[in-house]
Formats: sequence, structure tokens, C-alpha cells
Amino acid sequence: MKALEEKIVREGTVLPGDILKVGSFFNQQMDVDFLMEMGREISRLFSDAGATKILTVEASGIALAVAAAADMHIPAVFAKKHKTANVSGDVYSTVVHSYTHNKDFNITVPKAYIKENDKILIVDDFLATGYAVDGLLNIIEQAGATAVGAAIGIEKGFQGGSDVLRQKGLRVESLAVIESMKDGKITFRD
Amino acid sequence: MKALEEKIVREGTVLPGDILKVGSFFNQQMDVDFLMEMGREISRLFSDAGATKILTVEASGIALAVAAAADMHIPAVFAKKHKTANVSGDVYSTVVHSYTHNKDFNITVPKAYIKENDKILIVDDFLATGYAVDGLLNIIEQAGATAVGAAIGIEKGFQGGSDVLRQKGLRVESLAVIESMKDGKITFRD
Repeated sequence: MKALEEKIVREGTVLPGDILKVGSFFNQQMDVDFLMEMGREISRLFSDAGATKILTVEASGIALAVAAAADMHIPAVFAKKHKTANVSGDVYSTVVHSYTHNKDFNITVPKAYIKENDKILIVDDFLATGYAVDGLLNIIEQAGATAVGAAIGIEKGFQGGSDVLRQKGLRVESLAVIESMKDGKITFRD
Repeated sequence: MKALEEKIVREGTVLPGDILKVGSFFNQQMDVDFLMEMGREISRLFSDAGATKILTVEASGIALAVAAAADMHIPAVFAKKHKTANVSGDVYSTVVHSYTHNKDFNITVPKAYIKENDKILIVDDFLATGYAVDGLLNIIEQAGATAVGAAIGIEKGFQGGSDVLRQKGLRVESLAVIESMKDGKITFRD
């Protein structure tokens, strides 16, 4: 998505440690008109997938999930994050390692919200190591449902997450794929 | 909003302690078509307010904030929640008491995301005691910006939060106001 690449270059900031800050339009502050455009692009990319539901993780995945679901006219569900393994209730849960914070957390989804006949589109704002998407895949498998793909806002291609997910047979589509951020210069994959 | 009242009665559950569960359509799972309708209703109610930005709190406020912002064509910002008072960086912050969890937490918004000339519409999914909205008001005041009102999805009218906020001069509009949930029977305010 060319417009997203241009926006990243114009409004993003690269911090030490390959951290890309896009909080001015795509995280804590959201350019919602543009967000809805990203949602429509996801809807177009997966128009043939027959998705019945979108699954994301709180908190930063919610906005893009809503934007995509609005154009696809399907419900969206977010997994909750917990710091402890004290997970109770009738939920699917799995452990996800956070590369950014270097610790594990649990994500949970009530069993009532994913059915065996659901065709789930995973949506997330960022993809780096792919651990979060892999955790959502795990939950979809626990439910016996089908994952029809993962739609990502911004992918850090050089961290290899999408390669691992594709090897598992998952279709991954990212609206922008960053190839490198060396010396603060952002290069996109063609 | 009659359609919301009907949906609450049809799909909501009342648990002991005046807890209303609407997670099947308005929290962890979102009926996004309906959510966008709620956003359009908020946009209609505040069409004369001249809002330049929406402010909410993560995580459950984000979806409704996006839905309203999509129709109002303005950006949305969410305050982050922190369990500790260790707030660093160039942010506005305040302490909010959680009635549900009976503890305090900090909410923060980067200073860059609220300007003095901003006219802010607060959006949140639920209003009970009003502490969260009051915390957002406090942050808007710190920024020297103007709060043009608060748009709420579901208000528990019997907990008095909106009365306190209105006494402070804030315009509060809730899409559904619950008057009582006695014995599991939900009654709405006219």
C-alpha cells in the first residue's frame, strides 16, 4: 500500500534498536480516515477468503481490526493479555513471548466467541517475530476453526516473522513491509 | 438509541453485583456493523460541537472511538493505562480509581497529541462512576484544550457518574442509560 509507505516515511521515526514509532497516526493517536482506508485494503486483499470473523490482540490491534471488519461486515474479537498464568473461566489460552518487553504473557479468548465452523482472519497492527500471530493461530487451532490468513498493517520483514508463519501454511498479507531501517533510513520490500 | 437498548436486552447478561455483560457484541467480541451505527449516532449527536479530536482510554474504549471518529473524520487518541506511578516521558498523566477492580491506575497521553486549540470529544464504552471520564477531563485541562463533551455507549445511570460530570459543566450523551438492573431485569431511563 503505497500511501502507507509514504506516510511511514513522512510521519514515522526510527529509534535505536530498530524501533519504528508511528504513534502519531497508527497507534496511540490514530488517523482514523487513513485507518479506514487500510481496513478497506485488507478487505480487498482477502475478499476471496470467505472470512466469518476477525481475531486480533488488545490493545493496539483493535483499531485496525475494527476498520477491516467494518468493510467486511463481519464481527471482530480481541484476545485479552494477562501477565499471570492465572487464567480462569471458559477460555482458550496460550503463552506469547514479547520480543519488545522480553517476557511472556498469556492471551485468552472466551470459547463462546470462536466456533468450529468459523473462518478466521487474523489482523494485527505490527508483525515482527510473528509470536503474537502464532499465538492467535494456536487459539484458532484449539477451537477447531480455520485460519484463512493474517492481515498486517506494518511488517518488519527483516525479523523473519512472516516467513515462519508462511512455512506453517498461513497466508500473510502486509500493507507495508520494511526491509531495513539502517541509520534511520527506511527501505521497503518491493 | 432504541436499537442499542433492544440489543442489550436481547444479548446482554446481568451478573450479581450490578455487572452487565455485553461482551458478545460490545467488548471482547464486537458486532462491528452495529458498532459503526453507534459511531454514526455519536457523530450526529455532536455534529454541532466542532470537535477536532476524540480521546478515549485503552482497551475497551478504542473500538467505539474509532467508529465515531470514522464518521466525524477526525483523529482519535487513546490514553494508556499503567499500574505503577512510574510515568516517564513527555506525557500528561493522572490517577484514576477503578471501581470494578478497586484500585488506582495511571493514565497517560503524550503531550504531542493534545494541543491547546483542540476541541476534544471524550468517548468511552461504559460510564458508571465517571472516574475514567473525569481522568480524561483532567488531562484535557492539563493540556489547556477544551472538552466539548463525552459520548458514552452504555451508561449505568444509577451509579451517578454523569450527574457529577454534568455538574462540572460537561455535556454527556449516552446511547443507552440503564436505570436499574434489579433481579436481572434491565430498565432504561426514558
